[in-house]
Order: sequence, then C-alpha cells, then structure tokens
Amino acid sequence: MTELVVLPARTGVAFRLPQGRRLKIVNTHGTQVVDCWALVRGDPAEHMSMPHSRNAWYRLVPRPGDPLVTNRRRTILHLDEDTSPGIHDTLIPCCDLERYHQLGIKGHHESCAENFSTALQTLNITMPIPPAPLNLFMNVPMKANGSLAVAAPECKPGDHVVLRAEMDCIVVLSACPHDIFPVNGADCTPRDVAYAVLDG
Amino acid sequence: MTELVVLPARTGVAFRLPQGRRLKIVNTHGTQVVDCWALVRGDPAEHMSMPHSRNAWYRLVPRPGDPLVTNRRRTILHLDEDTSPGIHDTLIPCCDLERYHQLGIKGHHESCAENFSTALQTLNITMPIPPAPLNLFMNVPMKANGSLAVAAPECKPGDHVVLRAEMDCIVVLSACPHDIFPVNGADCTPRDVAYAVLDG
Repeated sequence: MTELVVLPARTGVAFRLPQGRRLKIVNTHGTQVVDCWALVRGDPAEHMSMPHSRNAWYRLVPRPGDPLVTNRRRTILHLDEDTSPGIHDTLIPCCDLERYHQLGIKGHHESCAENFSTALQTLNITMPIPPAPLNLFMNVPMKANGSLAVAAPECKPGDHVVLRAEMDCIVVLSACPHDIFPVNGADCTPRDVAYAVLDG
Repeated sequence: MTELVVLPARTGVAFRLPQGRRLKIVNTHGTQVVDCWALVRGDPAEHMSMPHSRNAWYRLVPRPGDPLVTNRRRTILHLDEDTSPGIHDTLIPCCDLERYHQLGIKGHHESCAENFSTALQTLNITMPIPPAPLNLFMNVPMKANGSLAVAAPECKPGDHVVLRAEMDCIVVLSACPHDIFPVNGADCTPRDVAYAVLDG
C-alpha cells in the first residue's frame, strides 16, 4: 500500500484515480464525514450520481460489491470494502455557504462545496455547483414517521472503505467542516481523515 | 383558470412560468407518472434540486406548503395543493435510453431524458443531461429491509397537484414513457395527463 495521506479537518483534495486503482478512505477518529465525488476524466459533466446509483441498487445506501454509477448509467467506482457499520448517506447535498447562512452563520464558513471547487481548481477543472456527493460515514437516520435527522457517525476509529475505479476518473474528497449539528461527532468538531491510493 | 392542456402519453413540454403564477398538473387517468423540473429563467445551471429540497424538508417527499429549492438553496416552487395520496418520488432519476437498454430494449425508446432535452430545445436551451426530477405521482415503496421497489401510482383519476412559482422559471414536464415495469399503472401503459397555468 502506498502511504496514507492525512486530509486535514475542514479541507478537500482532488486527484486522478486511474481505472483499476483502489482508494482507501480512513475515518481516523471515527467521527468524521467525508463527502466523496467522482468525475469522468476528460468529461466532468459525466459524474458519479446518487440518483442513478440508487436506481442500480434499489436501496438508499451502497454495500460492498455495489457499483457507483454516473449520470450516464456507467459504473465509475465500485465499493470494494467497508469495515464501518455501513451507515452512509446519499440523500443530503454537500454543505455550502448558503446553508451556513440559513443556519445563522454570518460571513464566511468553510464548506464541502467550497472544498470541492477549490480542490478541482488545482486540476484546472471549473465546476461551480457540486453534484450530490456520496457522504461517507454520514448518519441520516429515518424515523418511523418518515422524517430524516442528522446524527453523529457510528464508526470506530480507523474504520475505512475501499473504492475501486472502473474508469479513469477524478476523485474529490472533503472532510466536512460542519460544526453546528453533530454531523461530525457529538462534539460538533471536524477532524482529519486519511486516504491512500493502493497498489495494484 | 386557463384551459387544461393535454400532454399526450410519452411526450414532454417546456414553458415559462412567471413568479407568482400557479401550475396545475392533473393525473387524468390516475395511473401516470409526471417527471417535473424547474430551471431558473436565464440561468438553467441553477435548477430545482431534490437533494437540496430534501434537506429543507428533512423528509423524502414534499407535502402541501413545502418549498422546492434549487441547487443554490433558493425556493423556486412551492407545493400549494395535492389532492393525491401524496405519494411522489425524489429518489430515482428520470428514465433514459441507457436505462431502457439495460432493461433489454434494442434501438430507440422514448424517455423522460429525451423529452426533457427536446422540450428545452423549443426554448433554445441546451441541457443534455437532466437533473434529478420531482417524479410526481411515482410510487417507490420502501420495504422494511430498506429495499426500494417500483409500483403503480395510487391516485384516483383527476388527482392533481398545484405548484406556485417563487421566481421566474422554466418548467419541464414529461409524461413518463416507461412501459416495462408498472411505473405507469399495473398494465404498463403510459397515458396522457393535463396541465394548466392558473390565473393570478
């Protein structure tokens, strides 16, 4: 395995993941949500799509072995491994400055949307509005009356997933900066995570 | 009320809906799904977004009084009235040629994605990949084990919804051409619906 790279709390990163390579994403402290996107290399208008992926699974959340498909119905990633309890979210968009303003924040607040755009700029890709991400480790319980909530992740420190690229793609990860609700742990404190592109 | 316009089975339409106007969509036969989109007039990159709307509702499906918000978190429509049982879908993307090919169709098949693009071309708007629509009257039951299914709509003939425009927008409607699963009734037969832009 190549070395684990730390993704600092509240920040994002974008990198190329060639077809066949596997990506390990580690919830170092067990409390952190990682927003994850995949764009087709050379044509980012085609990207991993949660609606199309749900249509492939006929479930809300992927399990190991499930494909993640694009808005053209092509498999871009596979979920190869998941040592976490398997609680992820495909329903809620990434946080953005507009959301923080709705929640009462004045002025600037880091967001997954900003992390997405800033990270992609390092690869000379401009995409002002992010697609809906795969929110790894995000805990959105549904109550019996159908209402949704946001709760702290139910992971152990070191829980991880492995995604395998089924085509050449650009992956974007954001260690979610949300610090108002317990999205990132009961203490509402964003923390660092880690990732590695695996050999072979 | 202005006159009801028939939207023939398997077809789509796009039209301008000015801020403050209300749109009635009638499930004439009670068995038909209507895929519905709203784009900001003059900036279609901002459009009605199911993930952002779910985040506003903290539910999967809108109820009368709920806002429908854009991918910039602005309210574009309100669901004003709903005489149906309130069973709609926000989870599944619109059907497209790729999906029909996955389901075994050879060659061409009408689709909501094609209807979307073709209808928008009449307004000189090019948008090759549709956002996830509000699937009016679409019945996607969730089983106790969390799996999703597709079932026939549970509407009476003539059930309708009324949407109110909160900004100048372009609305696209597609009478879903799906005829393989019972999306559009137990007999898998797409049927016409109707709509009217209401006075005042």
